[in-house]
Amino acid sequence: MNEQDFLLAGERFDDLQRNNYKIIQNPEKFCFGMDAVLLSDFTTLRKKDMVLDLGTGTGIIPILLAAKTEAKHFDALEIQPESVDMAKRSVAFNKLEDRICITKGDIKEASSIYGAASFDAITTNPPYMNNNHGLKNPDMPKAIARHEILCTLDDIARESSRLLKPHGRLYMVHRPFRFAEIINTLKKYRLETKRACLVYPFINKEPNMVLIEAVKDGNPMVKFEPPLIVYDSPGKYTNRIMQIYGYE
Amino acid sequence: MNEQDFLLAGERFDDLQRNNYKIIQNPEKFCFGMDAVLLSDFTTLRKKDMVLDLGTGTGIIPILLAAKTEAKHFDALEIQPESVDMAKRSVAFNKLEDRICITKGDIKEASSIYGAASFDAITTNPPYMNNNHGLKNPDMPKAIARHEILCTLDDIARESSRLLKPHGRLYMVHRPFRFAEIINTLKKYRLETKRACLVYPFINKEPNMVLIEAVKDGNPMVKFEPPLIVYDSPGKYTNRIMQIYGYE
Repeated sequence: MNEQDFLLAGERFDDLQRNNYKIIQNPEKFCFGMDAVLLSDFTTLRKKDMVLDLGTGTGIIPILLAAKTEAKHFDALEIQPESVDMAKRSVAFNKLEDRICITKGDIKEASSIYGAASFDAITTNPPYMNNNHGLKNPDMPKAIARHEILCTLDDIARESSRLLKPHGRLYMVHRPFRFAEIINTLKKYRLETKRACLVYPFINKEPNMVLIEAVKDGNPMVKFEPPLIVYDSPGKYTNRIMQIYGYE
Repeated sequence: MNEQDFLLAGERFDDLQRNNYKIIQNPEKFCFGMDAVLLSDFTTLRKKDMVLDLGTGTGIIPILLAAKTEAKHFDALEIQPESVDMAKRSVAFNKLEDRICITKGDIKEASSIYGAASFDAITTNPPYMNNNHGLKNPDMPKAIARHEILCTLDDIARESSRLLKPHGRLYMVHRPFRFAEIINTLKKYRLETKRACLVYPFINKEPNMVLIEAVKDGNPMVKFEPPLIVYDSPGKYTNRIMQIYGYE
């Protein structure tokens, strides 16, 4: 089979700059953003780790983490059938069927799908906006990825807490404006925020992303990382970003 | 009276670079740090504001804010008699008796000293370390300023919530490693974290201070500010810091 055999109309392959892995995307639907790439870089996995990605979309996070880490196994849950199908084809194309298992299902039921205390680490790039935040995108796949239509922050915290083993880690990327709410919601489910990194588009601008590691029943002490700055000047990525993307 | 008449043995005046104000300090006891200066810069006060500084030490925060803002009146509470005395002499030297009132008393009883719902804004540069964090400084004034010996974060949040009017603002400087605990503790007393700024010593280092504004019964949305970076290179302050200190 050649590359084209893996694609449906409107889809394309994007090169991930790691292990020659590629991902199938449909630019009309939803393409992964820098958030997924930064979260994959922020996530630290060990060899024996069982990992789950909640709301995997086209599978970008487990595919990047399969390339970058030695973690044993990745499960990935996604509710939208088209995304599930694309993610499965990307896994097959990259010959990762032994390490990554894509499942169609609802985050709100994740702990009954996989069972309690099943994972060492969970990753998630959830919808950022709740129903009070701005207009919903009328195009459903994008709206579901961006707005808390099908699951809320509370659902993600509750299910993650159930799914994680003792001292398991949750890795999340989100918007800074929800940081206080995230910390309070995680705490409600015994997830303590232990590590955080603010992502600033420019050195003199407000941050527009935050990367968070929370530990189940961890002690309450946060380690903030150095600022992650995206651009040196308009259109020119910093060396750190080029490195994270695998360009140097 | 000349300057020397205001000083006791071991004390000196330090110039605040604002309105020709000076502050009395004893370098053997405790001198204000950059935290107080950055908090004063971060605090936004309006003309009619009634303001309280909890644990004022030598009075640095109200004296700086009296110079930089038009706020109507400042109360300042301090438990250590020597610091109270120094703060009162600094207020007198700067002819600020009409705007700043220093009171000796315990933060834990602040709401009964001043009465509930008395202030539009509260500032505080509290002890950063709790009893689990490192060795206590055997020199009492420094130990009380640095460790939660006489009051805890919980005491400050509880009393601040009582002392603030509806939608009153709490301004606090603290260590980033306690940020999650701060957010949770403030929330417990209906104080929502609304604005935050991380202070990084260098652009590639972890932050060592965080500035926080919380609003009583505010809605849960945090506005993070651009990174505040202290040094361009070792020993050389950034322009932003020079500006905050009033040197340019």
